[in-house]
Amino acid sequence: MPPFVHRVKPVWRDMDALQHVNNAVYLTYLENAREAWWRELAGPYDIFPFTLARVEIDYRSSATWRDELDVRLAIARIGNTSFDLAYRLVAGDRLVAEARTVLVMMDEGQKNPVRIDEATRAKMKRFEGQP
Amino acid sequence: MPPFVHRVKPVWRDMDALQHVNNAVYLTYLENAREAWWRELAGPYDIFPFTLARVEIDYRSSATWRDELDVRLAIARIGNTSFDLAYRLVAGDRLVAEARTVLVMMDEGQKNPVRIDEATRAKMKRFEGQP
Amino acid sequence: MPPFVHRVKPVWRDMDALQHVNNAVYLTYLENAREAWWRELAGPYDIFPFTLARVEIDYRSSATWRDELDVRLAIARIGNTSFDLAYRLVAGDRLVAEARTVLVMMDEGQKNPVRIDEATRAKMKRFEGQP
Amino acid sequence: MPPFVHRVKPVWRDMDALQHVNNAVYLTYLENAREAWWRELAGPYDIFPFTLARVEIDYRSSATWRDELDVRLAIARIGNTSFDLAYRLVAGDRLVAEARTVLVMMDEGQKNPVRIDEATRAKMKRFEGQP
Repeated sequence: MPPFVHRVKPVWRDMDALQHVNNAVYLTYLENAREAWWRELAGPYDIFPFTLARVEIDYRSSATWRDELDVRLAIARIGNTSFDLAYRLVAGDRLVAEARTVLVMMDEGQKNPVRIDEATRAKMKRFEGQP
Repeated sequence: MPPFVHRVKPVWRDMDALQHVNNAVYLTYLENAREAWWRELAGPYDIFPFTLARVEIDYRSSATWRDELDVRLAIARIGNTSFDLAYRLVAGDRLVAEARTVLVMMDEGQKNPVRIDEATRAKMKRFEGQP
Repeated sequence: MPPFVHRVKPVWRDMDALQHVNNAVYLTYLENAREAWWRELAGPYDIFPFTLARVEIDYRSSATWRDELDVRLAIARIGNTSFDLAYRLVAGDRLVAEARTVLVMMDEGQKNPVRIDEATRAKMKRFEGQP
Repeated sequence: MPPFVHRVKPVWRDMDALQHVNNAVYLTYLENAREAWWRELAGPYDIFPFTLARVEIDYRSSATWRDELDVRLAIARIGNTSFDLAYRLVAGDRLVAEARTVLVMMDEGQKNPVRIDEATRAKMKRFEGQP
């Protein structure tokens, strides 16, 4: 069992002229999963408290609007001000993509990095594991 | 000559699985043209001072990423707090879409409609005509 | 009870810099609802059998990624080769938008309009009413 | 001088509720630059002859619809069936993002990888260097 799973339903607009989900749309699916995960971890909020510094994504197979995708997510690293999430996107048994993101915790004005506090760190640890 | 023309270059991501520009994307092309027009009329700004109340759009022919589109724009009505813009999107001689939008001038907090002032009204009149 | 309801969950990427759902995104919500409705009516399919000829949309109140939207849909007109759908988008009790689309039934190559056959016409009638 | 430069103009819809260009949109900017580059290299075409296998992107600073971005692009590796492109996105002197993509040359049906032929390989070499 991955630590966290978010179901995504691709729609017609997500596909491009090759009739599969466009590469850029997967970054939105990752963002949607992060949002659901952070709400689970921290409760309701209006604006992401962290900013995206880096994405790596490997496209393993294509998907269409007929698929339902599970975005599996796990904490892969907890640093001082930043943390990594690892993702596996699957359509049933089929691996669609693997990804990793570096996220930086920010102050309220979204201007400067801040240290991840101990309470948040403890909550994050609950999501360690394999995505 | 239409009162204002904004050139738009469709890209791969704008197309959907039928290999033509997706219907929703045209509203973004209209928005891009409004932005360029308002900058021409009012000078640099950060946030649109008006809000969109209504769109009507008729799709006349399809377009692809191989096309270049001219969004022709004209003021069609100047009311008390709102105004209408009319648009014709063309790819060369071919008519791609016709549209009309109702826009409402808003106060700075984007909360309440405000009367269109005389100076703005005078500038808008320069763009009256056929799109 | 509206004849058909499709639930849509706005996400972060659907919002623009005014922190509400961007106007163009609503056309994608309408498209998503049409897809779910047509699947309900006609069963599984790969490509929409109809093309969009016209959209009218009135924006009544704004929505954010915190909302869940119900797209209520009804058949408003059944013509020879075309039909109209009417929509109401609501967030709970709040009206967010009203829309109407003209759709044209197409042959398999998406080149020419075709007459809506009697079986389809009969199925469409089940969705007549107020959205 | 980078081997190839493609100018991109962010628009209002590219921004998200933090009032800067959304992370997923940068993958579309990379795609736009690849398209312009491939047209320069190979002449007009309808469908990309290669598929995207991997993206790495580092976000260095944020951009808004007030910016113009140059996507600088260079060939970073030419393999048997795949090749790498390196990118630097700049707004004037400011570095906005750095990226690298792995692309796989495909047969006409977009089903199987094919060897990059010598003529294409020779053309690609013209774009080697620093992005």
